[in-house]
Amino acid sequence: MKTDVLVIGGGPSGIVTALTAKQRYPGKEVTIVRREGYVVVPCGIPYIFGTLKSVEKDRISDEGLKKKGVNIVVDEVIDLNLKSKKARLRGGEEILFDKLVLATGSKPSIPPIKGVELRNVFPVRKDPEHLKAMLEAIQGSERVTIIGGGFIGVEFADDLASAGYKVTLIELLPHILALSFDDEFCELAEAKLRELGVELRTGTKVVRIEGKEEVEAVVLENGERIKSDVVILATGAKPNTELAEKAGLRVSRYGVEVDEYLRTSHPDVFAVGDCAEKRDFFTRKPKSVMLASVATAEARIAGANLYKITSFRQMRGTVGIFATKVGDLALGAAGLIERVAKREGFDYVVGTSKVLDKHPGALPGAHEVRAKLIFTRHGGFFLGGQLAGGFTIGEMINLIGFAIEAGFTAAQYMNLQIGTHPFLTPPPTAPATLKATEDALRKIYPD
Amino acid sequence: MKTDVLVIGGGPSGIVTALTAKQRYPGKEVTIVRREGYVVVPCGIPYIFGTLKSVEKDRISDEGLKKKGVNIVVDEVIDLNLKSKKARLRGGEEILFDKLVLATGSKPSIPPIKGVELRNVFPVRKDPEHLKAMLEAIQGSERVTIIGGGFIGVEFADDLASAGYKVTLIELLPHILALSFDDEFCELAEAKLRELGVELRTGTKVVRIEGKEEVEAVVLENGERIKSDVVILATGAKPNTELAEKAGLRVSRYGVEVDEYLRTSHPDVFAVGDCAEKRDFFTRKPKSVMLASVATAEARIAGANLYKITSFRQMRGTVGIFATKVGDLALGAAGLIERVAKREGFDYVVGTSKVLDKHPGALPGAHEVRAKLIFTRHGGFFLGGQLAGGFTIGEMINLIGFAIEAGFTAAQYMNLQIGTHPFLTPPPTAPATLKATEDALRKIYPD
Repeated sequence: MKTDVLVIGGGPSGIVTALTAKQRYPGKEVTIVRREGYVVVPCGIPYIFGTLKSVEKDRISDEGLKKKGVNIVVDEVIDLNLKSKKARLRGGEEILFDKLVLATGSKPSIPPIKGVELRNVFPVRKDPEHLKAMLEAIQGSERVTIIGGGFIGVEFADDLASAGYKVTLIELLPHILALSFDDEFCELAEAKLRELGVELRTGTKVVRIEGKEEVEAVVLENGERIKSDVVILATGAKPNTELAEKAGLRVSRYGVEVDEYLRTSHPDVFAVGDCAEKRDFFTRKPKSVMLASVATAEARIAGANLYKITSFRQMRGTVGIFATKVGDLALGAAGLIERVAKREGFDYVVGTSKVLDKHPGALPGAHEVRAKLIFTRHGGFFLGGQLAGGFTIGEMINLIGFAIEAGFTAAQYMNLQIGTHPFLTPPPTAPATLKATEDALRKIYPD
Repeated sequence: MKTDVLVIGGGPSGIVTALTAKQRYPGKEVTIVRREGYVVVPCGIPYIFGTLKSVEKDRISDEGLKKKGVNIVVDEVIDLNLKSKKARLRGGEEILFDKLVLATGSKPSIPPIKGVELRNVFPVRKDPEHLKAMLEAIQGSERVTIIGGGFIGVEFADDLASAGYKVTLIELLPHILALSFDDEFCELAEAKLRELGVELRTGTKVVRIEGKEEVEAVVLENGERIKSDVVILATGAKPNTELAEKAGLRVSRYGVEVDEYLRTSHPDVFAVGDCAEKRDFFTRKPKSVMLASVATAEARIAGANLYKITSFRQMRGTVGIFATKVGDLALGAAGLIERVAKREGFDYVVGTSKVLDKHPGALPGAHEVRAKLIFTRHGGFFLGGQLAGGFTIGEMINLIGFAIEAGFTAAQYMNLQIGTHPFLTPPPTAPATLKATEDALRKIYPD
């Protein structure tokens, strides 16, 4: 078989690269090779177990790809020859390509804990068959223990506790979500999880998982024994880079090395998504960020640049824009948090605000919104922002991401014209992000 | 009495000018003179009658002003002497000032229809006593007829119909909301109003209002007689400029003339909000836009520039960012709509998208999002955008406003990193505004 563009991996970054390539280069044949019969929405996985109660409902349809004429091959690429531009599949077939895109994703990091191999201990994999087994086990259980209090762990805890399971969430760091938020925001999420009945164990380590064949309990370093019918390992992920390494591409521990156009060390090979190394927008250090939103932003750029470089279509650094929810509380973060800004030596000021997300506050369903924004002390350039509030936070945090990418300053942001509506936004007299900016501005220019 | 800064008018623009002045010039004394004992949230007025069932619940507290040390005088300025910098109050007192800010707002335009003077025919005024009388009349009624299908009329119709009143909405133009949205978006709002039981009469004129002392019916040009216990006149507003005119300031039919710093023709007098003329961001023509969000954007700029000009703090033209809701449908618009772009001679392309606001779509409460974006055909600069969907539209439309003010192009916007979450946003593979931008990009650069 022969194709112009070969995309390895069928997740969000593979899909978006293929669709963008078809849009930009309609004459080119584009082929995706993926292992899974169908693809799940990766960010939807935590909601399979309490809300959706079905793996199929968390499916990404192939319709969009088929409509645009993208070929889908369900198989696995086991070897790449970049000299002859050939991919060998497990099924025996070979695919000749002109351009190659690695969208091979990531796999769970399994912590070296005794007992992780017991039945009903599940890492979080994007494979539908694995998720079905997990769903079956959870539906037959009562007590679920989650190891790892990052986004995935917290979202599992939220969804399972809301559905009535007895949930314990264990986190090594002093707070859940501590890599993405400053303490005061982590604490809001913790309070909300407790309200939902989740037992939190933070700043503690799991020493072993106990059970005969099936898991029975998780034991903490202080000796506490948490009875568990199911254990979920939400302990991070690492990039799938074996294929790239074997093919001789440059790879770091953060992923396949890429430039601003998402090109690898081989001129005809691109890498996008979880398997590709990122560079932080501000620290300029390599890192890995595993978010479908980042993956698809890269995919839009890679897909557009496959055959012809458009100089503006560059990834100028990964801002990292996160949003999550716990019960009716939504949280968002973009760019640097204060803990990282301090650690990395940034000269910064902080502005905060506390407003309501409807006006007047007497309207039903009004939530408090808390905003914390970080700016360079000199010049007042945006460095980052964190928001907590109702479900409109998911879009509101994108304004901060935008301000970061546009290189905006606090003074410029204060000029921003904002639309408001009683049911949809904070009041025009106190827009959350503008109030926090105004607070910071006073520190940037004290007189 | 003597003050450094005198603000005439206690609505959102007056409040925000006063607070900004206190923030920027803490040593200056700031005084607001207003007629009302307390101030209502102007955008909340339509929700007093069905949702809040109380005028007091739609109140803006004076606490923020008092905490910052702003003086509040409840009285009315009846004369200004700009030479001696003196304001005379109805109560007889005089206030000497150094800087003056006119935030005198607007008043309803009463259409020249026979019968508008009948009892239970109400224009929409921001005066609490007037609103209380209106609430009482509505609560004793069954049939409410609204004349005027702009934002105010539509929001009244939504709130009253949702609360069980029999509502008829009459609009002169072929569609409701036709000054702010293109037809396809107006039609979504119309369908939703009909779903709520609102009787729509569009493209028709009221010829008279009938009744003895109290209103009994509204008669349309085709002879239809709509029985009405209460009639609401939502037929627009005009700027309150009498005081400014009498004082010799330059005034147009759109309001008090101001420059980019919101200064009037007198160097120590500023004007903000509904009473001030605006200039359209794109057409550069004068216009009046009566939105609290626009008024407060101006107030933030005027307040900062009262004593010292900061060159960046300028109003570079009014983008006009609107958001509203009908039932569970939210609508947003920013910048030019297609109808205006065409009429004004812009060379433009349109990009559209249709996605869901949650992912997977099987999640409870998912709404369809429709986006329509307008760009210059050459260069792809943002000209405007319209959105319809769930309640996150209110924040999402601010992204388009931001893109307009930042002078972004479609190509730049395609690079945008966007945060996503299953419950909070459209999928990372299909963010509403990026998909519409991509659609437009294909038309801007066909190959």
